[in-house]
Amino acid sequence: MTRATYQRIVLAARPRGQVKEENFRLESVSVPVPGAGQVLVRNQFLSLDPYMRGRMSDAKSYAPPQALDETMLGATAGEVVESNHPGFAAGDKVVGMLGWAEMGVADGATLRKVDTRKIALSAYLGVVGMPGMTAWYGLNHIMLPKAGETILVSAASGAVGSVVGQLAKLKGCRAVGIAGGPDKCAYVVDELGFDACVDYKAGKLDADLAVAAPAGIDALFENVGGACFDAALPLLNPFSRIALCGLIAGYSGGDVAIRNIRYLLTSRVSLRGFIVTEHPDLWPQGLGELGALVAEGKIKYRESVAPNLAAAPTAFIGLLSGKNFGKQLVSLAA
Amino acid sequence: MTRATYQRIVLAARPRGQVKEENFRLESVSVPVPGAGQVLVRNQFLSLDPYMRGRMSDAKSYAPPQALDETMLGATAGEVVESNHPGFAAGDKVVGMLGWAEMGVADGATLRKVDTRKIALSAYLGVVGMPGMTAWYGLNHIMLPKAGETILVSAASGAVGSVVGQLAKLKGCRAVGIAGGPDKCAYVVDELGFDACVDYKAGKLDADLAVAAPAGIDALFENVGGACFDAALPLLNPFSRIALCGLIAGYSGGDVAIRNIRYLLTSRVSLRGFIVTEHPDLWPQGLGELGALVAEGKIKYRESVAPNLAAAPTAFIGLLSGKNFGKQLVSLAA
Repeated sequence: MTRATYQRIVLAARPRGQVKEENFRLESVSVPVPGAGQVLVRNQFLSLDPYMRGRMSDAKSYAPPQALDETMLGATAGEVVESNHPGFAAGDKVVGMLGWAEMGVADGATLRKVDTRKIALSAYLGVVGMPGMTAWYGLNHIMLPKAGETILVSAASGAVGSVVGQLAKLKGCRAVGIAGGPDKCAYVVDELGFDACVDYKAGKLDADLAVAAPAGIDALFENVGGACFDAALPLLNPFSRIALCGLIAGYSGGDVAIRNIRYLLTSRVSLRGFIVTEHPDLWPQGLGELGALVAEGKIKYRESVAPNLAAAPTAFIGLLSGKNFGKQLVSLAA
Repeated sequence: MTRATYQRIVLAARPRGQVKEENFRLESVSVPVPGAGQVLVRNQFLSLDPYMRGRMSDAKSYAPPQALDETMLGATAGEVVESNHPGFAAGDKVVGMLGWAEMGVADGATLRKVDTRKIALSAYLGVVGMPGMTAWYGLNHIMLPKAGETILVSAASGAVGSVVGQLAKLKGCRAVGIAGGPDKCAYVVDELGFDACVDYKAGKLDADLAVAAPAGIDALFENVGGACFDAALPLLNPFSRIALCGLIAGYSGGDVAIRNIRYLLTSRVSLRGFIVTEHPDLWPQGLGELGALVAEGKIKYRESVAPNLAAAPTAFIGLLSGKNFGKQLVSLAA
């Protein structure tokens, strides 16, 4: 059953510095009729991710900017309402990139049918989706940790960082996280099984990190930049590896300068920036492994769910300052 | 013929910030008698290199610090006076690590006999020595440039940078340098054959670099850090490579912060810090190629030669601020 209209959120204005509510606009639009090869989907979850902040800007980056007055981009999980594509039927659960919208049409080729018998639909936007793949790729293709080595990950309670540390533990590493506040740090250690987690808000990051990583750091997954990154650099061991995934500390204003660059030289560090969507050949393997681990209960995850589309801007602004706890989603269920 | 004494320079005190003359002390010591397997060498040239600044400090680094009151370490080229090693005879030309000293003994295993018929002895401390190998390794094992790509090298007129650009030109690349002052820049373009050289002292580094690298930068050889490094980062093309060799801008004081870290992420850059002495397996190949190119006149080089050992501290202090022009040597010939 389709409704006559659905709600979406468009980019109303590009942010200057901090993202604000007025950068977005909620609209009602007519439900489209799917064309040849297209599928009409009612979204149940929208994923909010830090990369969206970059797309809201028109500065040079790896992807073209989000267009003004168009539906904000984003990954979604939902149910097929009507299909003109042989691979999909009404009732199928699918993930796609339908954006900040309750409904939408997409070419069947851009959708992926998912099995929700052992894995919750929402997990396909997190641990068994792009964030999980980001962790899997960075760990297995850049950090290359060996058993007994120490890995460090910033934003450790988040959708990506939580998976990095758990995968590293499964490989026999010492996993150290950085997170904001005692609740997140307790979760990272007690629930996710990291060996240690340092609270960057406690005001003595350098000293706390040195205690948490007494044998130094062999591989770093960097999500944050700024003070977290700077504190990690002096602890890097010779020939350590850095997967540079995100720099959220600088997303909302000027760049955050890094002082300790010299350790990249003196410790002969290999660093690589990466964008997981550029490695599509590895997704089947990675998602297969992650799905199996989640189904077996060997990887845990946590979600923060905003109640409806109108709440998405506030939730996204919160995500950029670390207010979320685990994977940030928006529920779009009626 | 041996003399009863020779002169050497020891580290008298560790520098605080800028290196000063009083950090060194000139001494006369007795000429040693070579033991079993040892060789007595009269040095003709001492090499001065930026890495020595790091060794003068006792901060954590990749190598132990230079000991106080001991001969300053350094590469030397000279002639065998007396040999107790079967591989060497009086009159042989050798390179070794005899330090800031007119003479010295070394185990024969630490010396390398060199052929000065087609290559000047001093060149074995520069273009056919450690600096040349540094350029060769960074270019061929980290920067991996393809014909038609643009490479950038800072300290382009120096012992390392000059070789990076000339090797890149031989591979069909566009070679862009950064150097200090119009004389060095003219030399880099007119004598060494770079396509362009930007004068970082001219006050508009960002704009000048953009003009010199209109297609962006595919591979960067970083010798300097600070403003030079920061200016290069926004010009990096997707999937570009950085060989991080030196950060001389920060050697004499506090670290120099880098603002443009985000381009390492958005351009998916691979960066690796390296120390060429950790790759001894590649030296025979590299020095062989460099020696052939120098003998054929396909690689040019320039030297700044201080007249005697007593002049070494001033020359070294000048090297750290870019006062040298080409490879900095000290002549120790009587």
